[in-house]
Amino acid sequence: MVTEHDIDFFEKLLPRRAITDPDVLESYNVDWLKSVKGSSKLLLRPQTTQEISHILRYCNERNLAVCPQGGNTGLVGGSVPVFDEIILSTSLMNKVLSFDTVSGVLVCQAGCVLEDLNSFVEEKGFVMPLDLGAKGSCQIGGNVSTNAGGLRLLRYGSLRGTVLGLEVVLANGKVLNLLSSLRKDNTGYDVKQLFIGSEGTLGVITAVSILCPCIPKAVNVAFLGCNTIQQLLQTFRCCKGMLGEILSAFEFLDSASMQLLQNHLKLTNPITESPFYILIETSGSNASHDEEKLHNFLQHAMNTALITDGTMAKEDSKIKALWMLRERITEALLHDGYTYKYDISVPVEHIYQAVLDMRVHLRDQAKSVVGYGHLGDGNLHLNITSPLYDSALHSLIEPFIYEWTAKHHGSISAEHGLGLKKRNYIHYSKPAEAVYIMSHLKNMLDPKKILNPYKTLPDYIS
Amino acid sequence: MVTEHDIDFFEKLLPRRAITDPDVLESYNVDWLKSVKGSSKLLLRPQTTQEISHILRYCNERNLAVCPQGGNTGLVGGSVPVFDEIILSTSLMNKVLSFDTVSGVLVCQAGCVLEDLNSFVEEKGFVMPLDLGAKGSCQIGGNVSTNAGGLRLLRYGSLRGTVLGLEVVLANGKVLNLLSSLRKDNTGYDVKQLFIGSEGTLGVITAVSILCPCIPKAVNVAFLGCNTIQQLLQTFRCCKGMLGEILSAFEFLDSASMQLLQNHLKLTNPITESPFYILIETSGSNASHDEEKLHNFLQHAMNTALITDGTMAKEDSKIKALWMLRERITEALLHDGYTYKYDISVPVEHIYQAVLDMRVHLRDQAKSVVGYGHLGDGNLHLNITSPLYDSALHSLIEPFIYEWTAKHHGSISAEHGLGLKKRNYIHYSKPAEAVYIMSHLKNMLDPKKILNPYKTLPDYIS
Repeated sequence: MVTEHDIDFFEKLLPRRAITDPDVLESYNVDWLKSVKGSSKLLLRPQTTQEISHILRYCNERNLAVCPQGGNTGLVGGSVPVFDEIILSTSLMNKVLSFDTVSGVLVCQAGCVLEDLNSFVEEKGFVMPLDLGAKGSCQIGGNVSTNAGGLRLLRYGSLRGTVLGLEVVLANGKVLNLLSSLRKDNTGYDVKQLFIGSEGTLGVITAVSILCPCIPKAVNVAFLGCNTIQQLLQTFRCCKGMLGEILSAFEFLDSASMQLLQNHLKLTNPITESPFYILIETSGSNASHDEEKLHNFLQHAMNTALITDGTMAKEDSKIKALWMLRERITEALLHDGYTYKYDISVPVEHIYQAVLDMRVHLRDQAKSVVGYGHLGDGNLHLNITSPLYDSALHSLIEPFIYEWTAKHHGSISAEHGLGLKKRNYIHYSKPAEAVYIMSHLKNMLDPKKILNPYKTLPDYIS
Repeated sequence: MVTEHDIDFFEKLLPRRAITDPDVLESYNVDWLKSVKGSSKLLLRPQTTQEISHILRYCNERNLAVCPQGGNTGLVGGSVPVFDEIILSTSLMNKVLSFDTVSGVLVCQAGCVLEDLNSFVEEKGFVMPLDLGAKGSCQIGGNVSTNAGGLRLLRYGSLRGTVLGLEVVLANGKVLNLLSSLRKDNTGYDVKQLFIGSEGTLGVITAVSILCPCIPKAVNVAFLGCNTIQQLLQTFRCCKGMLGEILSAFEFLDSASMQLLQNHLKLTNPITESPFYILIETSGSNASHDEEKLHNFLQHAMNTALITDGTMAKEDSKIKALWMLRERITEALLHDGYTYKYDISVPVEHIYQAVLDMRVHLRDQAKSVVGYGHLGDGNLHLNITSPLYDSALHSLIEPFIYEWTAKHHGSISAEHGLGLKKRNYIHYSKPAEAVYIMSHLKNMLDPKKILNPYKTLPDYIS
């Protein structure tokens, strides 16, 4: 329990940045999907690593639970308090610390917004190695804490490779400075990996060093229609071969997703109606080479009847418009009703089977059952809606979807993490021995369990 | 101490594969550089994960130390016993378990030799995401345990991204099955990362799941000469821009390295003598596009006098011959005398300064001081030789080189690891807090310290 005395301490430490006003706290207590609501009475807005260090040392001594929060765009309830945890917002930690224009290494505070960072490095001829729909508000510290995947993973790989260094404040307030800018470093265990994807349960990330690739000289986007899932998969294989190193995204959506975009957001389908749509992006260093490759591929795909229709864009505004069709599905779903969100990865051959099996399983119980996602990574976003939350429907979906995923050797959370909502389903994707090691890591780094309690780790550990 | 009773146990468990013959043991006790020699009396050659599980459970109960050994090609004494540790060789664990021709995911036992794996996946249209000089004998389990870098890191990234899953036997004999084939999985902490690069001190890797990229349709190699380090760096910058996504290696060697190749291995310098040589490799999906890009780049580099001479290859045999000039330097050094090997990474601008400063520092005390390495990754291999081991020279070199590296915010071991030889220098590159966490991880996973003792972790932990 936070006492008056604690609040005094924090108000002294963070003048005008220790917030107790319930109106302000409201939005920090609720997640973006409005599906989880905490009742925190205190929001802290530190500006420096030292302040976070003081906060955690105090909280650790006083046994006060802390919920670290970045842009609060997570989808599994990981970034909001469950009860009355103190909210530790990184929003004011938004400074770029350095950028090296030779190597492309960016060092910045954890609270920098992803889109702002991308604009910053673009001016210098680079891009961020990750991109996601929430880029306008998500923060790099949150991205790293949740090991965010997103739209560029196919090309630039995961954050486990592109993050070169981290600064982390441990539960006891100690600052762990691993803010290296080196591409390669094999001096002992790679301790920073512990904090990537651990959702703020092992430490609070305060700064990030990340490798930015050169900005591509040419970007092309093609939006294509496809009749069957077999053709979709064959298009992917053919595309990998013919576009090779310039392929930077291979996304897909089904006709049900397109319908939501049309109905709720009034977006226009730029091609003829199809059961499946593909968004292909190329990024390369030579515009005419890239166009030739893309042209050869499209001609081949049309000639062999892999695709039925398509449109291409190389101008920025049209590229953005095509990307909207993929990026705004989450938003369209919010308009459709209460959304049951699943984010699974399976061997790519089975990627759409979950949608088909779910439709059969639910019959007419759901309003919409839609599938879209990062086909190139074997990552399906399966979303189901109902006019209002329906517990009967919910229990039809779960654990059915988790059992389905386990049967197909998949992951029940490909990129969203476990947070609050999925932590107790971890055993569908991880063996007991791994969960046991996780609990030991937690005990080791946060013995008093003050950091983001009720997240990531399951209640029951065998 | 291993007793007769222990040997009986192992002979029963591994018939004819528990070796005590001193002649056979000889080569397993000495590292490839012949710089470290243990006195193990027992070599175990398991064929299955279950056998390794039995071995470790027994050793853990009996407090017997174990040295896991792959291809024994490491350069820091990590793969040989220090005293009489039991040698656990993975050489007979050499089976491919599965290969998925759609996704390119290879699952194999830890003892598979890297070159064999590459031949295997090449037949199916893929390549291994790593390549290194020792490929003919190094094993994939050892590669992962040491987080090997090598020649393809620039293009395909580190093993932390390309390794999708591991099977590991823990010190107590428990089998940790994390042998996932998924590109993305955010269900809890990524426990497998603990075993990548921890040099067998936290568990024994028994199987690996790894993502193989498509085989490039066209490969070109250019071997160029360069007058100054400034031109070398500028050539790199220009090359990144003009070759972009098809650049797959940017290696360099100095004239002293070339001399060793000529003197000791009778290799021929294919171009006119220069202070620096560059090896550039491109890998792409369209031969004529790649050639055009490379041609444009070379023309620009010649016109602007960045390079002085060069030769190009697109036929396999000539490509191999050019690569030999880079890959066989280690071997040439062995012929030159006793070799003091350093493997540092620094911000790329400073990459050659360590060689120049070392030459000034050593004056005429050394026979050769040569520099070469992965310029694209900021990774320098600095090697010094003397006719015989010379302790006075050794103490001139160390800690000078470590202090130099720390001053330049570099890593004292970019890719070779710490092993036995460098573990006590860890503090030049890692803060005390990180080493403290390392020691806790060791205590957690190997409380009796039976796994590869005297490796990776320093003697003194504050």
